[in-house]
Amino acid sequence: MPTTDTLISLEQARGPFFVGVDLGGTNIKVGLVDDLGRPLAFRTTPTRAEEGAEAGTERMGRAVLKAIEQAGLTPERIARVGLGSPGTMDIPAGRLVAPVNLKGWDDFPLRDRLAHHCGLPVSFANDAAAAAFGEFWIGSGRDYHSLVLFTLGTGIGSGIIIGELSIDGENSHGAECGHMIIDMEENARLCGCGRRGHLEAYASATAVIKRAEELLADGCETSLHARLEQGERLTPKLIAEEAERNDELSMEIVMDTARFLGIGVVNLLHTIDPGVVLLGGAMTFGGNGSELGRRFLARVREEVHRRAFQLLAERTPIEFAELGGDAGYIGAAGIARRDYLAHV
Amino acid sequence: MPTTDTLISLEQARGPFFVGVDLGGTNIKVGLVDDLGRPLAFRTTPTRAEEGAEAGTERMGRAVLKAIEQAGLTPERIARVGLGSPGTMDIPAGRLVAPVNLKGWDDFPLRDRLAHHCGLPVSFANDAAAAAFGEFWIGSGRDYHSLVLFTLGTGIGSGIIIGELSIDGENSHGAECGHMIIDMEENARLCGCGRRGHLEAYASATAVIKRAEELLADGCETSLHARLEQGERLTPKLIAEEAERNDELSMEIVMDTARFLGIGVVNLLHTIDPGVVLLGGAMTFGGNGSELGRRFLARVREEVHRRAFQLLAERTPIEFAELGGDAGYIGAAGIARRDYLAHV
Repeated sequence: MPTTDTLISLEQARGPFFVGVDLGGTNIKVGLVDDLGRPLAFRTTPTRAEEGAEAGTERMGRAVLKAIEQAGLTPERIARVGLGSPGTMDIPAGRLVAPVNLKGWDDFPLRDRLAHHCGLPVSFANDAAAAAFGEFWIGSGRDYHSLVLFTLGTGIGSGIIIGELSIDGENSHGAECGHMIIDMEENARLCGCGRRGHLEAYASATAVIKRAEELLADGCETSLHARLEQGERLTPKLIAEEAERNDELSMEIVMDTARFLGIGVVNLLHTIDPGVVLLGGAMTFGGNGSELGRRFLARVREEVHRRAFQLLAERTPIEFAELGGDAGYIGAAGIARRDYLAHV
Repeated sequence: MPTTDTLISLEQARGPFFVGVDLGGTNIKVGLVDDLGRPLAFRTTPTRAEEGAEAGTERMGRAVLKAIEQAGLTPERIARVGLGSPGTMDIPAGRLVAPVNLKGWDDFPLRDRLAHHCGLPVSFANDAAAAAFGEFWIGSGRDYHSLVLFTLGTGIGSGIIIGELSIDGENSHGAECGHMIIDMEENARLCGCGRRGHLEAYASATAVIKRAEELLADGCETSLHARLEQGERLTPKLIAEEAERNDELSMEIVMDTARFLGIGVVNLLHTIDPGVVLLGGAMTFGGNGSELGRRFLARVREEVHRRAFQLLAERTPIEFAELGGDAGYIGAAGIARRDYLAHV
């Protein structure tokens, strides 16, 4: 598992070289990787979205050039740059359309402006697709021909990779699997997008907090009350801590989340039939590193076994993603590499 | 729209030539088409599944050779044969695994046995994927880069085509979109596959009959009672006829079917974001040719507009498929053509 703690040296590296950029609402991560996806240099720079798209992209371009310098390379040695960005976007045109987390960056030719500022060719991707591509290239999906990645956070992002193809969609809205309807009832839970019954309305961090608030308001017995009375904020992390201390209600909230997510996984097995399904993002309850994370994953798998075609349930591994916060820039670099190889 | 009524002559045709085979539980359809997908010859032969896989495949091979003769061609002029088959199957291996509608044909190397019997190279596909590929090649999907086809019949089949890629899945279970969960409740409707809450449990012909039976048993007022008392069978066709005669309950059954189907369409827009969504199969309530069919389609679109991202609802046409019963063999021939072109 590559992390920014384990940068390799130029002597260890194998060219060609690629730079990946992971644009977020708060920070921009930039990593330079070799042909095997191993980082030689990494840096972050604040997005400062409020200063505008052009200023932000200029800063991004400088960070790319600095990462190249940091790795002991020159721009001529870089085959291509990859950029993963939040949407909405027009991927073929390389444009942001109306990015929710980058206010004021509407209708901006991000790809070509970055190419201008760093002087290198740029591949443009959705951030969730880039993360999925990163896992596909060198992460938990590296041994598979196709994968689906669910990224669990405030919302639920997702990416679908088949072969080297990212399912971006005709309108750059592919793999919005968090917005699959899993409950068609008119009174189903409201999603952040304003529609009802979506997976994200049940299994995102936002949904976990909402469900916990309802249970608390119902007067359910739980050690969460005491934590909240101490002025702590209700978060999935707090709920996870209490679940680990055997608070039944907190455990129920975590396990229900796994159950809902399992339904989403089944729908992707029955639509895509991928080689592997990966769960990543901030809300994996500790992932493989914690007992709770392992119980969470086991519950997802149990729901999939209950609801999916037996053959698919048996054959399709469901695992945690492993690149963490590095997936975005590594995957963006991987997409740059894919595009580079398609053209040489 | 190509039909078997409008065969073109060899003089009108443009090579190379392909033969498509659509294997069904009752009949085998075989068509010879030119490089533009236009049929020069067509024939059917009974499947006689009970005589076994080898005998059926031998008959299939003879039908292929007869179609070639019928078109005034010789086998050397045929670039490749395409075969669409019901599953379950192993597509890369060219094998049937346990086909529900072909009892006793389990674990049979169908592709290679057909190649043996007709002496030509054979491409192997799922029948629903073949139909989708037919619409993609020369049917309602011909102007789009990607599509999703729902085939409404006893069950709900589906095919997803992106570029020239058919989403077959790692275990040949891709695009089983009829088995998406749209109602996650434990008491959701039971699907033919034995699991609950699947789209097929709401919007297939089987589901339409089930829902109608329940409403009839509830004593709802409807002109269906009189038809049934005359000894007629409750079918989607009967319900459609009464809906066309302004029977409110029958119309409600048809419109509810459209509503459920709309939910399935939304899930595919949010997962695949295809260029177009097509509705085909036996249960389209008359399709574009009838007022009821047009109302059915309008209701599907209305539900999609209500539930999908606005941009996708506005940009993604939802239309009837147009190749009807020809889609399977034409699409199988189209897949053969794709594979042929990839190798020359």
